[in-house]
Order: sequence, then structure tokens, then C-alpha cells
Amino acid sequence: MRLLDFWFEFGSTYSYPAAMRIEALAKSEGIAIAWRPFLLGPIFHDQGWDDSPFNIYPAKGRYMWRDLERVCAQQGLPVRRPSQFPRNGLLAARLAFRFPSEPWLPEFVRRVYVANFAEDRDIADSQVLESVLQALAQPVALLAEAQSVEAKAGLRSQTERAVSMGIFGAPSFTVGGELFWGNDRLEAALSYAKSEAAKYAV
Amino acid sequence: MRLLDFWFEFGSTYSYPAAMRIEALAKSEGIAIAWRPFLLGPIFHDQGWDDSPFNIYPAKGRYMWRDLERVCAQQGLPVRRPSQFPRNGLLAARLAFRFPSEPWLPEFVRRVYVANFAEDRDIADSQVLESVLQALAQPVALLAEAQSVEAKAGLRSQTERAVSMGIFGAPSFTVGGELFWGNDRLEAALSYAKSEAAKYAV
Repeated sequence: MRLLDFWFEFGSTYSYPAAMRIEALAKSEGIAIAWRPFLLGPIFHDQGWDDSPFNIYPAKGRYMWRDLERVCAQQGLPVRRPSQFPRNGLLAARLAFRFPSEPWLPEFVRRVYVANFAEDRDIADSQVLESVLQALAQPVALLAEAQSVEAKAGLRSQTERAVSMGIFGAPSFTVGGELFWGNDRLEAALSYAKSEAAKYAV
Repeated sequence: MRLLDFWFEFGSTYSYPAAMRIEALAKSEGIAIAWRPFLLGPIFHDQGWDDSPFNIYPAKGRYMWRDLERVCAQQGLPVRRPSQFPRNGLLAARLAFRFPSEPWLPEFVRRVYVANFAEDRDIADSQVLESVLQALAQPVALLAEAQSVEAKAGLRSQTERAVSMGIFGAPSFTVGGELFWGNDRLEAALSYAKSEAAKYAV
């Protein structure tokens, strides 16, 4: 089974519709997903930005919020512009990094996105993440593990790996060395993964 | 018939695949196109950029050239990375602004894009534009009209109008006050134009 790496940042708007649809879509195409949380903050910082480009460039930001509404409407997803943007997804990203292959992880990711972009809840607040874990019948003690030295260092190095693969925004998808950027490239990425898988099929 | 405004800049990479497919696609959907050349230079300048963001941010640029290859391959379009980027599309834009409704205009636009992004010819060179006009059996004297005071001022004010509509990049599509940005939003823009047209149908 061919693997597609899904690179997401919890503060990223277009990562929301991508996270909500990627699992079902990949399954229908026979592609396995590796969930790769990373941080946009350091990447933006290296480009000279100390904030989201959607805040720095107002016309781009105004357009994005309207476009996100349309994209979510088409997917049947609730969306509400958060009262704070971008929200800090560091703790959630550390948790997702620490438990990438747990069966509850995809639903955890989706619920954190819904909390941020549909319910306007502060995903930087550990109580919000605890409530998500509880809804999934998982122990809140997992959050302590997400704060371990190893998880912190691991997420940092995963972000460095993203940069080394040419990633500059989220969501991104990689299949081997091939990079696709943006929710609207998910279909192309899956189609590429399928064509690569066919090359190695016997 | 509902009108879709197609905002393009001759130096813009993703405007190339959009320009190549918009006429046939819009026709099949029963939507009329208004061809609206404008200039990204002044818009980028107001955002603090004195060059294309694809040159300023290397990771974004590297990705774009690869993505453009894939997009063009999917459309069956030739593409070759120009030896100079971005090229100055001012003269071509003035000509397109001056003759927006001539029957030869869509083919003129397409041939200028092919010259820039498939043949690596310098579209800032009036001789290149003359050869395009000649291929369309049009008098090269049209170029002098494109350099009139009225055409120059008109293109400037069309660019200001783009800004006032919230446009910050190319290609863009507008239907009334609704803005769509990017070649990959063309289908959504046409679909919106159709749904708006249906509202007013008797």
C-alpha cells in the first residue's frame, strides 16, 4: 500500500477541510496516510513573518475567510471565523506527534480542528484538549506525555524535516519526494500516490 | 447570459493554464467572459514586494515551477521555465486592455502566454507582439494604439479597480462582487456564475 504523508498545522485554516476529508478519501483510493503535524511558526519566521500572512496581507486574509466559507460549505462542514487567529496549536501538535499511529488519532485531529474553526474554542488551552481526549475515552494523562522532552524535540525535528522537503505552508502532502501544497491539491496527491503504487505492483 | 470577469497578468505563471482553458470551459457552461488584463507590479509593490513572491520566497518558487509543470501536463499544455521571470507584460496588457472585445483578442492572449511560458520569448519586446498580431492577420499598427495616453491611463485605472475589488493575485475571477483566486478556482467561479444566472432566469 502506498503511503501519503499529510503535513498539517492546527492553526492553519485550509488544513481544516483537508483534515476532515483526507482519511475517507485516501481509504477509497487505497492509500495509507501518515499523520505529520508540524509548526508553521518557525517556517514563517524564517521567511521574515512574525504572524500569519493572512494577517500581514489584509486583502489575502479577507479573501481566505470568504473562500474557506465556500470550501467548507461545499464539504458540508461547519465553519466560524475564530475570535483569535492564528491559535497556538503547539500542545495539540506535540500530542499528535507523540501518538501518530493510535487508532483514535485521526478523530482527535478532526475534533481539534472543529474546536478551533467551527466552535471558536481555544485549542492552546489544555482543558480544551482534555475534553477532546475524554470524548474519545482516552486518559487526559496523555497530555503529560505530549510535554515530554522527547515529544518536544521530536516535533521540532519533524518541522525541520518538513523544511528540508521544501514545505512552506499547510496543508501539504508528500509522496516520496513529490510535494503537493493546499487542500485543493489533495486529489492530485492521491492520484500521484496511486500511480506510483501501480509502478511497483506485481 | 451571466458574465464572469477574468483578471489576468501576462507575467503570472498560473494565469497561463487559466487563459488557455477559460474560453472553451466558459462556453460549455454558457457563461460569457470579460477579459480584464491588469498589472500585479503595483499591487505587489503596495504589499512591500519589489519582485514576484515566487522569487522572494525560494521554497514557494521551487514548488510553483514543479506544480505548474504538473498542472500543464494535466491540461496537455507545453511549458518551459522562462529564462527571465517575471517578464514585463505591460505592452501586451495595454493592447489587451485597448481591444478587449475584438474577436481575435482571446487568441492573442493565449499566444502571448505560450510565447512567455512555452517558447521562452520576451513578451516585453514589441517585435514578439508584432509577430503574434501578424499570425492573427492583424495590423501591427494596433501596437501604437496600445501606447496611447488613453490606453495607458485605462490600464492603470483597471488595475486600481482590481484592487478595489479585493484582488491581490492572478489569475482572479469575479462574478458581481464575488472573488475567486487561482487557476484551481475557475470551476468554482463558473459554477457560481451559473447559479447566479439561474436566480435571474424567467
